[in-house]
Amino acid sequence: MKRIAFLVAVVATVAGVAAFKAPASSPAGDEAAPIYGVTIPPGYRDWSLISVAQLKTDKIDQLRAQVGNEIAIKAYKEGTLPFPDGSIIVAMHWTRVPSEFNNKVLDPAFPGAQSFVVGAPVNIQVMVKDSKKYAATGGWGFGDFKDGKPSSEAVHKACFACHEPAKDHDFVFTHYAP
Amino acid sequence: MKRIAFLVAVVATVAGVAAFKAPASSPAGDEAAPIYGVTIPPGYRDWSLISVAQLKTDKIDQLRAQVGNEIAIKAYKEGTLPFPDGSIIVAMHWTRVPSEFNNKVLDPAFPGAQSFVVGAPVNIQVMVKDSKKYAATGGWGFGDFKDGKPSSEAVHKACFACHEPAKDHDFVFTHYAP
Repeated sequence: MKRIAFLVAVVATVAGVAAFKAPASSPAGDEAAPIYGVTIPPGYRDWSLISVAQLKTDKIDQLRAQVGNEIAIKAYKEGTLPFPDGSIIVAMHWTRVPSEFNNKVLDPAFPGAQSFVVGAPVNIQVMVKDSKKYAATGGWGFGDFKDGKPSSEAVHKACFACHEPAKDHDFVFTHYAP
Repeated sequence: MKRIAFLVAVVATVAGVAAFKAPASSPAGDEAAPIYGVTIPPGYRDWSLISVAQLKTDKIDQLRAQVGNEIAIKAYKEGTLPFPDGSIIVAMHWTRVPSEFNNKVLDPAFPGAQSFVVGAPVNIQVMVKDSKKYAATGGWGFGDFKDGKPSSEAVHKACFACHEPAKDHDFVFTHYAP
C-alpha cells in the first residue's frame, strides 16, 4: 500500500510540474519566424519604452507598448532616419480590460471614471533592421509571435505591405513618446 | 553698418537659443516636490516597462505607462511584497489622441479601425520606497511633476489617501504586464 501511495504521489507531482504554465509573455525562443527568420530577442521585456498605444477594431481591443534595444532608442532620441542596422523594435500587445478595483477607488474624486489595464498577452511583433539581408523590404525583417511561437507564413506575408505607407518614417509607425 | 548687423545677429541668436523649448518630457530636476521631498529620478525615461494603462474621466483622457528601476522591476518579477527600500516607480501620463495616419493604413484590412497614440505629456508621478523616512505613508514618498516642475502641496496632500485602498499590494495599483 505504501508503495502505491508513493507512486501516486510521484505521478501527481510530475503531472503538477507538467501542468505548470509557462510565463504568459513570450520568452526568448529559438524558433525563427517564417520568411524573415526573425527570433525573439533575449531580454526584450526589459528594454526601454518607445511609446504606448491603443487599438480597437471589430476583432481587436488592445493596449500596446513598443520597446527598443539601445540602437533603436538612440536613433529615436536623436531623430536618426533610417534606423541603423542592428535596431530592434518589439511591440507588445495585450487585451484591454476595465479595472473595477481602480474605478471604485477613483469614483469619489472622479465619478464615472473608466480605468483600463492590460489583461492577457495577445502577441508580440518584432522588427529587425538589416539593410542588406532585408533589402527587399525596406531593410526590415518582421516576426510575429504568440505565446513564444512564430505565427504562420500567411501572417508574415502581410507585414511589409502594411508597413509600406510609413516609408517616410523608415516603415515604422511608432513615434517616440515625449 | 557692419557692426550693427553683427550685433543684430548676436541678439537674434541669443533670443533663438533662449526660446528653445526644453524637451517635453520631464528631465531630471533638482527641485523637490512638497511634503515628501521626492525629486525626478535621473534616467527614468529609459527604465524598464511595468505596464501600460488608459484612464478616462470627465477631465482626463490619457494613455499611461509605468516604469520601474531595477529594484522595483526585480520585486515585480519575483512577486516580492512589500517592495524593498530603494524601489522607485514612475508613471508617465500623456493625452490620448487618434492617429488618422494609422487609421487610414488599417482601414482596408480593418474597416473602422480606431488607433490611438500618445499626444502631449501631462504629468509624471513618482513613488519612492523608504520604509523609515515614509513610515507614516506605508513606506512610500510621492511626487507629481508637470513639465519638470513639482506640483502644488494640495496635489501632494491627496496622494496617500487615494493609494491606501491598494494596501494589499503595498499601496501600488499597477501590476506587472505579463
